[in-house]
Amino acid sequence: MVATDIDVQLESPDPDDPVFALHRGGKMEVAATVPLRDAHDLSLSYTPGVARVCEAIAADPETAHEYTWVSNTVAVVTDGTAVLGLGDIGPSAAMPVMEGKAVLFKQFGGVDAIPVALDTTDVDEIVETVVRLAPTFGGINLEDISSPRCFEIERRLIDALDIPVFHDDQHGTAVVVLAALINAVRLTDRDMEDLRVVISGAGAAGVAITQILRSAGVRRISVVDRAGVIHTGRDDLNEVKRLLAEQTADWARPGSIDDALVGADVLVGVSGGTIAESAVATMADDAIVFALANPNPEVHPDVASRHAAVVATGRSDFANQINNVLVFPGIFRGALDVRATEISESMKIAAARAVADLVGDDLAASYVIPSPFDARVAPAVARAVTETARREGLARRPY
Amino acid sequence: MVATDIDVQLESPDPDDPVFALHRGGKMEVAATVPLRDAHDLSLSYTPGVARVCEAIAADPETAHEYTWVSNTVAVVTDGTAVLGLGDIGPSAAMPVMEGKAVLFKQFGGVDAIPVALDTTDVDEIVETVVRLAPTFGGINLEDISSPRCFEIERRLIDALDIPVFHDDQHGTAVVVLAALINAVRLTDRDMEDLRVVISGAGAAGVAITQILRSAGVRRISVVDRAGVIHTGRDDLNEVKRLLAEQTADWARPGSIDDALVGADVLVGVSGGTIAESAVATMADDAIVFALANPNPEVHPDVASRHAAVVATGRSDFANQINNVLVFPGIFRGALDVRATEISESMKIAAARAVADLVGDDLAASYVIPSPFDARVAPAVARAVTETARREGLARRPY
Repeated sequence: MVATDIDVQLESPDPDDPVFALHRGGKMEVAATVPLRDAHDLSLSYTPGVARVCEAIAADPETAHEYTWVSNTVAVVTDGTAVLGLGDIGPSAAMPVMEGKAVLFKQFGGVDAIPVALDTTDVDEIVETVVRLAPTFGGINLEDISSPRCFEIERRLIDALDIPVFHDDQHGTAVVVLAALINAVRLTDRDMEDLRVVISGAGAAGVAITQILRSAGVRRISVVDRAGVIHTGRDDLNEVKRLLAEQTADWARPGSIDDALVGADVLVGVSGGTIAESAVATMADDAIVFALANPNPEVHPDVASRHAAVVATGRSDFANQINNVLVFPGIFRGALDVRATEISESMKIAAARAVADLVGDDLAASYVIPSPFDARVAPAVARAVTETARREGLARRPY
Repeated sequence: MVATDIDVQLESPDPDDPVFALHRGGKMEVAATVPLRDAHDLSLSYTPGVARVCEAIAADPETAHEYTWVSNTVAVVTDGTAVLGLGDIGPSAAMPVMEGKAVLFKQFGGVDAIPVALDTTDVDEIVETVVRLAPTFGGINLEDISSPRCFEIERRLIDALDIPVFHDDQHGTAVVVLAALINAVRLTDRDMEDLRVVISGAGAAGVAITQILRSAGVRRISVVDRAGVIHTGRDDLNEVKRLLAEQTADWARPGSIDDALVGADVLVGVSGGTIAESAVATMADDAIVFALANPNPEVHPDVASRHAAVVATGRSDFANQINNVLVFPGIFRGALDVRATEISESMKIAAARAVADLVGDDLAASYVIPSPFDARVAPAVARAVTETARREGLARRPY
């Protein structure tokens, strides 16, 4: 800040809380990547020189991706309706999370991410606002938008835009769950095709996990919400859950979460609810339990370990942390590098395989997924995404 | 960028052009201001720690300005309809200018500015889009939006938002013109009240210069557009020009620019047109000529100097460069520092006086305005703005 002789006294909710001390003034800034020392520099970066770059882009819009920062930027867009486990706290209160996400994008993916907190929760308004912002960004990461609104917003933005649109609460979670599951299945000597999977929670994450597991070959899935197993006989289902019911009709049977878990191979908890030890005990031998609610897993990992061969959580203080940061920086790094028009289902599965493969011969019950700080992860995910984009014809950048 | 084994071959419109070399990849980036070295750092900056900050903001929205970067950010918003002298080249082609502006904001004001290029030219859509974005930013700088649409967009945004909204093409130009004029008037021993001023150009800059000169005490102003002097007898005037005609009715008389200049003390050119030497020759003794069109001044400064006592241009290669960068970084620095609710007319005039005062005893015909690289300018402008905001009760930050 330029000095202005102001001595501002700020009050912290708790002056001894290191979190508030760290957050003062925010967690990010803008920096120039060009020098501005004198009139010569100014004449190149700004007028009159900049006019030539503007004219080149006006003549060929593709060149915007070579001569502006747009090619490396992602908007982290929220309406503040489903922030962490806090719920609908509004756009301003969501900003610290969006900044945190932006910092992670830069740290792990080299992506310049900009928090965009919208003062509207109307689906139409969110869609049209993001569409109008599109020339500003190379990609759109949707964040902390409540379900089921998030599905329609994402679908409509994908249809409207030719840049990648990715709702991380859905697909980031789904990709990293699949990565961990690939290794857990390998460790317990199973096949995807034979797995019996129970997903507790039918919000953004539960829906996306169901889709990616189906794409990865899982045929027997049962999704459970607060009213029990989602099945075609229920008359209280919204459009999204009705589709889920149809997609899982082969195996899903009416009942409670406890009913569903009897004999199941895999439990994926993305609900924030509680699952009884007695229910986990009825799962198949060598069960796989991913209890991902934060900060309180659906079943404590120490409890789950009494009955399961592989246990993962969303927490950093237990083994096997299922953390989206393993995925979204590399996904967007790869998509931006080749100017992918979208993040396809194949790219997501390739990203999951790339994360899983890094575990390699070190595979163990306590190591089915790499650490969030494993520096190999983002480049491996990016490479998988770029290669898949090229194979699918979704890469626009010449190479 | 994280390595992804990609060897991209890019083509430049002219590989030897240093402007394109400089612009490759854009001119700015995002940077973290917090460390992210390990799980502990992650638990403070992101989950679970960040949730406490979100909760504090949800409980008291004012704290967003202490614990997010919003308090130091400005959106540089354009629709690409009036970019430099290039006209309506669209939002993507406008991005290099927006990035340049953002870099100047940071360099001179310590402000984190984000380019926002909108894919709409509809006034209603621009207004509602920026209103929805408001929780993301501490201020709005409108840029390169065509006249007369810019006036309505700015007015409606000022009415709708409680953060500063400032159309730099209007007010930045007006403030720096007033700063230079204050010193030119002092040098030529005149009074504002007695000045006869001709403004060539009735776009964004011409209108704002007229307003600020009136606020500063100038009573005799004649504004000229392509059809000649704007006066109340003309039937081809839009709403904005009709108001101009009424505001300048005391002195403006029907005629051409050449007619208007006879006996005038001051010419301010913001038109991009050409003014004949013979017309400049008819101005009063010790005339003041600000020929601000870029890159080609309305009258060449060497020609104007034959007839005028003080000559200024928008160019860095002549004396007295009238450059907005003297104003907008300090205006927003000051407004953000005290969380001003708006940029008032008094703040603008205080900013102009602050810029003018820095010339001090060095005042000369070739030095009526400081250099854009004079490091004293932005802090002085910021101080003038904060003091005025406090005096006017427009400062929200405690002090």
